[in-house]
Amino acid sequence: MEELKTRADVKDTGVNEQSSAHLVSVGPDRIKAFSDGVFAIALTLLILQVKVPSPSQISSEAELQNFLLQQWPAYLSYALSVVIIGHFWVAHHGLFHYIRRANRMLLWLNILFLLCVTFIPFPAALMSEFSNYRTSVVIYGATLAVAGLLFDLMRWYATYQHRLVDKDLHPQVIRTARRRNLTGPLIYLLGIIVSFIPFNISGISGIQVCLALYVLVPVIYFLPGRTDSYWAGKLPTKKGRDGAN
Amino acid sequence: MEELKTRADVKDTGVNEQSSAHLVSVGPDRIKAFSDGVFAIALTLLILQVKVPSPSQISSEAELQNFLLQQWPAYLSYALSVVIIGHFWVAHHGLFHYIRRANRMLLWLNILFLLCVTFIPFPAALMSEFSNYRTSVVIYGATLAVAGLLFDLMRWYATYQHRLVDKDLHPQVIRTARRRNLTGPLIYLLGIIVSFIPFNISGISGIQVCLALYVLVPVIYFLPGRTDSYWAGKLPTKKGRDGAN
Amino acid sequence: MEELKTRADVKDTGVNEQSSAHLVSVGPDRIKAFSDGVFAIALTLLILQVKVPSPSQISSEAELQNFLLQQWPAYLSYALSVVIIGHFWVAHHGLFHYIRRANRMLLWLNILFLLCVTFIPFPAALMSEFSNYRTSVVIYGATLAVAGLLFDLMRWYATYQHRLVDKDLHPQVIRTARRRNLTGPLIYLLGIIVSFIPFNISGISGIQVCLALYVLVPVIYFLPGRTDSYWAGKLPTKKGRDGAN
Amino acid sequence: MEELKTRADVKDTGVNEQSSAHLVSVGPDRIKAFSDGVFAIALTLLILQVKVPSPSQISSEAELQNFLLQQWPAYLSYALSVVIIGHFWVAHHGLFHYIRRANRMLLWLNILFLLCVTFIPFPAALMSEFSNYRTSVVIYGATLAVAGLLFDLMRWYATYQHRLVDKDLHPQVIRTARRRNLTGPLIYLLGIIVSFIPFNISGISGIQVCLALYVLVPVIYFLPGRTDSYWAGKLPTKKGRDGAN
Repeated sequence: MEELKTRADVKDTGVNEQSSAHLVSVGPDRIKAFSDGVFAIALTLLILQVKVPSPSQISSEAELQNFLLQQWPAYLSYALSVVIIGHFWVAHHGLFHYIRRANRMLLWLNILFLLCVTFIPFPAALMSEFSNYRTSVVIYGATLAVAGLLFDLMRWYATYQHRLVDKDLHPQVIRTARRRNLTGPLIYLLGIIVSFIPFNISGISGIQVCLALYVLVPVIYFLPGRTDSYWAGKLPTKKGRDGAN
Repeated sequence: MEELKTRADVKDTGVNEQSSAHLVSVGPDRIKAFSDGVFAIALTLLILQVKVPSPSQISSEAELQNFLLQQWPAYLSYALSVVIIGHFWVAHHGLFHYIRRANRMLLWLNILFLLCVTFIPFPAALMSEFSNYRTSVVIYGATLAVAGLLFDLMRWYATYQHRLVDKDLHPQVIRTARRRNLTGPLIYLLGIIVSFIPFNISGISGIQVCLALYVLVPVIYFLPGRTDSYWAGKLPTKKGRDGAN
Repeated sequence: MEELKTRADVKDTGVNEQSSAHLVSVGPDRIKAFSDGVFAIALTLLILQVKVPSPSQISSEAELQNFLLQQWPAYLSYALSVVIIGHFWVAHHGLFHYIRRANRMLLWLNILFLLCVTFIPFPAALMSEFSNYRTSVVIYGATLAVAGLLFDLMRWYATYQHRLVDKDLHPQVIRTARRRNLTGPLIYLLGIIVSFIPFNISGISGIQVCLALYVLVPVIYFLPGRTDSYWAGKLPTKKGRDGAN
Repeated sequence: MEELKTRADVKDTGVNEQSSAHLVSVGPDRIKAFSDGVFAIALTLLILQVKVPSPSQISSEAELQNFLLQQWPAYLSYALSVVIIGHFWVAHHGLFHYIRRANRMLLWLNILFLLCVTFIPFPAALMSEFSNYRTSVVIYGATLAVAGLLFDLMRWYATYQHRLVDKDLHPQVIRTARRRNLTGPLIYLLGIIVSFIPFNISGISGIQVCLALYVLVPVIYFLPGRTDSYWAGKLPTKKGRDGAN
């Protein structure tokens, strides 16, 4: 059934025949399902970086509470990373919602993107342990920025000249989603730059401002954007059913 | 096919058009599948907290048996947490069974809920190692209570004024399921309060009564409730097919 | 579509209406998909028990080779457990292939069964480290035996008086599959008994015979049995399409 | 729906009736979904081998940077293994795209293949820690070669005399895909042989040439091959819809 539907879409939308040169037997639905699995696992593995003290270290309630309070960067890093991977999952679905077929290049761009996503638990653990080191904060931001940029490359590749998407997909939709998704990488790069500025105003250093900028990213993504308006506006039209998906 | 079905449902049930303002391209089915993955992984990771002794610590069968018996809180914490995550999985399906479309707020409420679910392995490991510390027992109960309350917030958000559910969904169904799911958080909060009461009756302290209350939760969920009766009663009617799902 | 099909099946096969008393909103398909996730993760986590030496322990190729050769029980335990979890996956599908609807009891029996399956990495790690200790060998066999018996309880519950299965499902099919699946638990129990017999013939002890019996289980499951013949025989008939599934 | 489709395919394509002797109740779609889960998890677990230093080891940015730079083999091993598991996922889909039904032998060959795939995190971790030891480099290559050969055995088993595939599947397709997939195992075996040659030209040893050969494998797989041309060529024909999948 799914195959038939996909086939129909391919016919209707007249995708660029040129681009079919390297079609592969793994369709967009399979890529989506596999990526979902990777997102879910990467997200769940993050908790392994939050450490439980060894009983030999602890001899009273106060000591246990102290240990747990002192590893606040671990909780922050955990929550930030879960939310960011959640965001990538949402963005990935948004992109693959338009994609009508896959080719080898898309497959590999996706594998490279997932390589970055599954890497996230490492810089997250690094930032947990070394939250006051520029090195770890920079590596964390850089990983997320690279993941975001790879995702944008994948989007560009799929949508350029409607290579793998519907012919009638409005360029405005692509532009809006793109702007939205590049916000993250831009803030991460800004955070990295700020972390290198040697200042210290009433105990607040560049590294801490950088961390605050990282926290800003999920807040921005939480706010509804133009992409949503598009979905809402399109709902009652012919393409509307996509909106509900 | 799935898209068409969903579309039809949207039409038939006349969902509140106002709420479509922030529709997203990730539908309820995708949220369900992704959450399923997260539940399955969080549940399976719990075993990593059950420790195998290092060979250098052990020199006889008796020592090995002793080590294994002494970590009974680890088995208890493992079994409790597996069953509770299993319960959340069931409750999540129960809720998403009614939900007809998703918006950005639902998506983020769900990500916050999953953030709590994937956090569970940490307090579970803490309670394994420090079962006689109030701190760890309280953190365990608080995590599960917060997860349960976030789940209820998600339910409230989706069903309030039939925002994202069928217009003809009977309020009684929502109320019954709600009461059922709030039982857990209430018992966890009761357990936390009891753990702070400084008593010791024939060797049983507040912490141990608290643990007993935690064990009570899955027992209560195991017993069939009113929600089931609803499903059973609805089976032969038009809506009956849902009952079999 | 799936819902409709399921509904049709329910009608056609006249499942015991009595048993619908505790129907739940999680259908057999969802239980199957969730359990699949748990099987896949439990199976993949097993590799974490195979240890990599720390560089400080190793100073030559010979030392590294020695370390790797000496942990042969870890490889055996890994391979055995992967294959056994693979077998449970196959058996689980075989059972849920007949099941037409779910109720609360089935749901909880399945969660208890999964609790045993996700527990397997622990006894597997224990047997890796303490392969010559009766305690660990017995715990490994007992875990697998309990998992197998819980699975059989679930089968019994679902098929007794055709509670949750097709009315026209031939009892012979149930009996054959049952006999096949009880073979494992029986051999595990036999192995456990043998491990307690204090003998030592040319260096071979009861524990080693027990290990050999554990290895026998996947070998037996590999050989085609009567269940297969049933599927083969049924293929050209009306029910045949099930055979291909 | 899926069942019906599968059934129709079975009829249309006239698969060898002889081979139906050991059909099982787990169909190709289920095997594919389960294997997908295993691929996704094995791929995501690889990050656990990349180590975070303990805070007690590190006292300055320079020391942290030094630690992170010195574990470059861990990043290489991580990236290589992610990409190779990604390749196996693609190849697995390519194969199961033709397969119309499953039997017990296919099921077990697949479980043995997955046993190798889930094993990969171990040699990957070994190569991270002992990148200049022949033992670890050889074990890594051997694991990947064995996985590739098992995959080819599975392909051979399924396609020999069109046992489990469409009767009209062109032998050329099988041959081309086979040649493509055997490239990996061949290069791994070549790498292993080279690692044993005792030479050292301007600091480059056999082990390093072997590592370079391992890096070559994903590069080769990235380049579009003849299989793709087949998919592209077939797109406008009757079988074309498969191409989009």
